[in-house]
Amino acid sequence: MLDQMADANPFLDPLRFERRAPPSAIVIFGANGDLTKRKLMPALYRLAYESRIPPAFAVIGNSRTNMSDDQFREKMHEALKEFLDDTPLEPALWESFARGLYYVAGDVSDPGFYQRLEAKLAAIQQARQTGGNVLFYLSTQPSYYQPIALGLGSAGLHKDTGWRRIVVEKPFGHDLESARELNRALHHVFTEQQIYRIDHYLGKETVQNILAFRFSNGIFEPLWNRRYISCVQITAAESIGVEGRGAYYQEAGALRDMIQNHLLQVMATIGMEPLPSFDADSVRDERAKFLRSIRVMKSDEVPLFAVPGQYGPARIGTEEVPGFRQEPGVDPRSRTDTYAALTLFVENWRWARVPFYVRTGKRLPKRITDIAIQFNTAPHSPFTRDDNDAGTRPNLLIIRIQPDEGISLRFLSKYPGSGMRLRPVSMDFNYGSSFGARSPSAYETLLLDAMIGDATLYTRQDMVEASWKVVQPILDAWSSQKSDLPCYPAGTWGPKESDEMLARQGHAWRVP
Amino acid sequence: MLDQMADANPFLDPLRFERRAPPSAIVIFGANGDLTKRKLMPALYRLAYESRIPPAFAVIGNSRTNMSDDQFREKMHEALKEFLDDTPLEPALWESFARGLYYVAGDVSDPGFYQRLEAKLAAIQQARQTGGNVLFYLSTQPSYYQPIALGLGSAGLHKDTGWRRIVVEKPFGHDLESARELNRALHHVFTEQQIYRIDHYLGKETVQNILAFRFSNGIFEPLWNRRYISCVQITAAESIGVEGRGAYYQEAGALRDMIQNHLLQVMATIGMEPLPSFDADSVRDERAKFLRSIRVMKSDEVPLFAVPGQYGPARIGTEEVPGFRQEPGVDPRSRTDTYAALTLFVENWRWARVPFYVRTGKRLPKRITDIAIQFNTAPHSPFTRDDNDAGTRPNLLIIRIQPDEGISLRFLSKYPGSGMRLRPVSMDFNYGSSFGARSPSAYETLLLDAMIGDATLYTRQDMVEASWKVVQPILDAWSSQKSDLPCYPAGTWGPKESDEMLARQGHAWRVP
Repeated sequence: MLDQMADANPFLDPLRFERRAPPSAIVIFGANGDLTKRKLMPALYRLAYESRIPPAFAVIGNSRTNMSDDQFREKMHEALKEFLDDTPLEPALWESFARGLYYVAGDVSDPGFYQRLEAKLAAIQQARQTGGNVLFYLSTQPSYYQPIALGLGSAGLHKDTGWRRIVVEKPFGHDLESARELNRALHHVFTEQQIYRIDHYLGKETVQNILAFRFSNGIFEPLWNRRYISCVQITAAESIGVEGRGAYYQEAGALRDMIQNHLLQVMATIGMEPLPSFDADSVRDERAKFLRSIRVMKSDEVPLFAVPGQYGPARIGTEEVPGFRQEPGVDPRSRTDTYAALTLFVENWRWARVPFYVRTGKRLPKRITDIAIQFNTAPHSPFTRDDNDAGTRPNLLIIRIQPDEGISLRFLSKYPGSGMRLRPVSMDFNYGSSFGARSPSAYETLLLDAMIGDATLYTRQDMVEASWKVVQPILDAWSSQKSDLPCYPAGTWGPKESDEMLARQGHAWRVP
Repeated sequence: MLDQMADANPFLDPLRFERRAPPSAIVIFGANGDLTKRKLMPALYRLAYESRIPPAFAVIGNSRTNMSDDQFREKMHEALKEFLDDTPLEPALWESFARGLYYVAGDVSDPGFYQRLEAKLAAIQQARQTGGNVLFYLSTQPSYYQPIALGLGSAGLHKDTGWRRIVVEKPFGHDLESARELNRALHHVFTEQQIYRIDHYLGKETVQNILAFRFSNGIFEPLWNRRYISCVQITAAESIGVEGRGAYYQEAGALRDMIQNHLLQVMATIGMEPLPSFDADSVRDERAKFLRSIRVMKSDEVPLFAVPGQYGPARIGTEEVPGFRQEPGVDPRSRTDTYAALTLFVENWRWARVPFYVRTGKRLPKRITDIAIQFNTAPHSPFTRDDNDAGTRPNLLIIRIQPDEGISLRFLSKYPGSGMRLRPVSMDFNYGSSFGARSPSAYETLLLDAMIGDATLYTRQDMVEASWKVVQPILDAWSSQKSDLPCYPAGTWGPKESDEMLARQGHAWRVP
């Protein structure tokens, strides 16, 4: 599955040193949306600030709203003022950057739109010398993904003398069948090598660092298996609620919104086998193999290994917080999961019988994404005794994805004094303060990768299908039930059923 | 070899919680010396301050100087004012503590002295209710150890209704034969269970913590062997010179003064097999077994695996520092080693072919005692390339004994940015700041242990002989040579021959 161009691609350095984009144009569908303002435009400006994109570069925004190029530029200028947080908005750089911004209004279900887009692209290619290279970025509502792909195909925009690639934002399908259908539609027009399915978690520095941590050090990998690890806990907690996105969220739920994509990819990064090399197919082959190794639950196992939850109203501090069913746009009888916790098993030699606990939720006590590797206790401690019970606390390796990116190792130490009292202590490494260097945002990394043609940190068709396969029986079981979901008061760590699920395996959720 | 009293000893709790001494008297031979003032008296006062020694407690000082009890008390008061650094010298506590201090002048080679000592002990036992329990503490010049032991025996002071124990300060012998002779002399009077050979390194909190670190955690021991460790480096560096002790030091040298005792014991603590339980004989059996497993060099191997050194004059900053041969009391042709570095191999399954590098020296760039466990690099890194050479730096576990007691783990991390650049970073644990609790001094721990009858942290006859056996062929080879020792300028990390010794094994000294 090697990119046909890889061998001839001077921009593609597997270790990514001094990475720079070739001449290219990016067409953003949904350019009027939040993602463009908050993430894509700041990332592109930052890449320009670092001279990682060439002068021969252009962005073409599209949405149904009528706007001139200049109006679009002004809108993007406002977005950068608001969302560019750690980079100066220099007038001279903005001027030259803005000259590369264009806009084409149009309805993506109208064939005539693609004619106008083609004409605009041709003009820009002439004006900006972008070499016919075009990255189509789908940031619209998911229901437009298929029409856009087919529209681009009908207009012949999917191939040219330069490269043509398509980036597809999440969600990639609503379930296994719709994901397969979307793949079929995309493949009707694009080859797999042209398709870049984005999962921005894979672009995060701390997720990439998991690979460096595991595979460039000699001491962690020998411990990284069922012999030494008793369980893995992956937590993605949000303290906020649905924040006005109730109508959208009601159709998704926590399992779809976070676990099917982000957290299963994080789990694969933690659990996959060592890499022969750091290139797109080596990395994705291993991730896909891991995802296919996750045991798919039978429907009668779902109640044992999966717990949904929905937050109820609560007073947090002095604030009265509504429950999910009281949020604007949410059906007062909604059965959407705002919390989901799974016990997953991996059927291979490394991980047999080691539970991976994955949880995510809204309105939990704090915002944190982290991974806790819980090790077996010492097989025999000469210091164990009833009144030395700290002596039985297991070693923990905590990988913090956000915030306070870093790694901590909890181990037992002697407490100072005459007794052999043991206490858990931590060794800490803080990613930010240790280097004093800025971490690029996930979107900077991923946009640059797509322009260069490096799909290492993008998901592949087989990865997406494997993760939907894991989630599908749980979605089915939950939707077939008629009773209310387990409720948890806003500001707590989820329903008690989730604690009970771990207790059945002899484990307990760590409090982050 | 269990202490006959262990089963019936209510003071002996193997995990040492709430440890308190029984009624007892301590006779300090050499009470006029530095150790008494700087270490023993502050330790005893601190134990009193913590109520770890009972009211029924007394100290009897001895030296040849004539002094009354009150004069001795005054002298000790002055010593506490000078050397008690982190404990308040409370007048009321000092008053009651001082009432337990006594003094008997006398020459330990005079049989009449022991009669006077016996009479004093009897009177004190009556006055202070010390129950006939006496700890004899030998802190004199080593040449008096045998006469004192024999004198105590002749006077029948080595046994009574209470317990009698003898603590022997270092050096324990000048070589293998004199150590054996001293053992014979002690055993002529005392049983092995009565003899407490002190090595204050074993009483240090951070050395005890090595046991907690290794044997109460599940994740270090699996890595703690030849499969994952490429070498171990033990460093005890002093920045000072011989500081007026030139005449004494000239007779000892670095190998005898530091390696034969302290550093081989530290090495045993790092290298010994896991403990079945934390009691005196379990711990000492394992330490002794390890020490006996160290390969004893043949005389023709000494030049390959042992490097002596002697510091020469240098300017350090603005200070002109004399060389060792220019120090007061030192023979200008002295061949005494002020630096010694050994490559030691351990002949067992765990450590076969893993070099242990042990070095110590005076006038090195800084004062530090630490242990560096250097691990093998990852067997295959997907990120290795010529221009990513940090990617081949091995993992290091650093255990700092003094100062800044703590543990650090060096590993490779991704440097923030678009490239997969690797950089070594550290996770750190600081013993002092993590707990905010005071660590008892080694002498507090060891004096209390001897009073209680716990020899866990004391060396045993077989341990002492095993360590002398390791050192003896090196002493012999060095003393048979006539040439000057390799010289290193004061303020540097030792002679180049030491670096060459490691280079032959493909290693290099870490710069602490």
